[in-house]
Amino acid sequence: MRKIVLASASPRRRELLGSLGLDFDSCVSGVEEDPIEGEIPAEHALRLAREKALAALVSPESFVIGADTIVIIDGEVLGKPQDRAHAVEMLRKLSGRTHRVITGFAVVRGGVVLVSRTIESSVLFKDISAKELEWYTRTPEPYDKAGGYAVQGIGAFFIREIHGSYTNVIGLPLAEVVEALEDLDAFRLEDLDCG
Amino acid sequence: MRKIVLASASPRRRELLGSLGLDFDSCVSGVEEDPIEGEIPAEHALRLAREKALAALVSPESFVIGADTIVIIDGEVLGKPQDRAHAVEMLRKLSGRTHRVITGFAVVRGGVVLVSRTIESSVLFKDISAKELEWYTRTPEPYDKAGGYAVQGIGAFFIREIHGSYTNVIGLPLAEVVEALEDLDAFRLEDLDCG
Repeated sequence: MRKIVLASASPRRRELLGSLGLDFDSCVSGVEEDPIEGEIPAEHALRLAREKALAALVSPESFVIGADTIVIIDGEVLGKPQDRAHAVEMLRKLSGRTHRVITGFAVVRGGVVLVSRTIESSVLFKDISAKELEWYTRTPEPYDKAGGYAVQGIGAFFIREIHGSYTNVIGLPLAEVVEALEDLDAFRLEDLDCG
Repeated sequence: MRKIVLASASPRRRELLGSLGLDFDSCVSGVEEDPIEGEIPAEHALRLAREKALAALVSPESFVIGADTIVIIDGEVLGKPQDRAHAVEMLRKLSGRTHRVITGFAVVRGGVVLVSRTIESSVLFKDISAKELEWYTRTPEPYDKAGGYAVQGIGAFFIREIHGSYTNVIGLPLAEVVEALEDLDAFRLEDLDCG
């Protein structure tokens, strides 16, 4: 097992971390994602990030990264759309307005949470026309993503402005995660494979 | 020849436009990129975008997209680094600070400029350590990019915040380009191939 483990099923998080040439394993931890009553969104993301990292079955020497990303508009957390009508409803809410994206991440080693942080960005959508909505929700893209869109996919053309970390909107705030791993001596830059 | 032509050699611009499932050709037009004396950066990007689109040898029916992206700090336009020392110098300037990224784009048909716009974003870099600088400039990434970094590559971990369009920083402001193409009836959403 490698020294760094990403406890996430998200191919987008794996791609982000992989883009650095970092050598890591990934695994999925079956953590229940339901919010606890009274929990504010940032707490929810942070708790899930910790739980995902703590639930991973890894060597006590491994640095485990857990992360959870949520999309919030009007104080409401948008999950993944269950069907087409749900995706249409979500995207109508986001159309022409700014929403918040919070990612919580945690780095755990030997059952101890070494780092846990939340990073928040805001995203301004263009006005989505009825035709665009009709078309986009017929593609497979919205259905496994919180908020019903992919910032790095076709959904990119909905996005007029981002304020804050872009990689945070994809699901893993790269500058902050790499900083945390560097501070913990979890990897050495000179070992990265970026040929 | 397809109805939409991207007059750009940049694989990143091709990827961005391709991510929509848009059917287009691309071509390279050999336009001289030197600034004209007295030209401000936004004018420069806009002029080059127009010239690239106008120089493309295409059918008069085709919609040709030209684009030019520049990175500016302290009023100075940073080009592509010529060698390692140059890349180090550029990245030192960007470290820990905010710089501007302007993309000019133009849509041309039958020798007539139908649309031309500039979009500006700002990018805040984290403090880049001497070790990170040493390592990054040994990868091939900085050398064919204005400003010496790739926002969508390994360079992503330098970026703490973006304000404005993210795809603009990559080299093509997707929301605005797609809007322009839709307004011109250059394509129909229902023809897009998005799996």
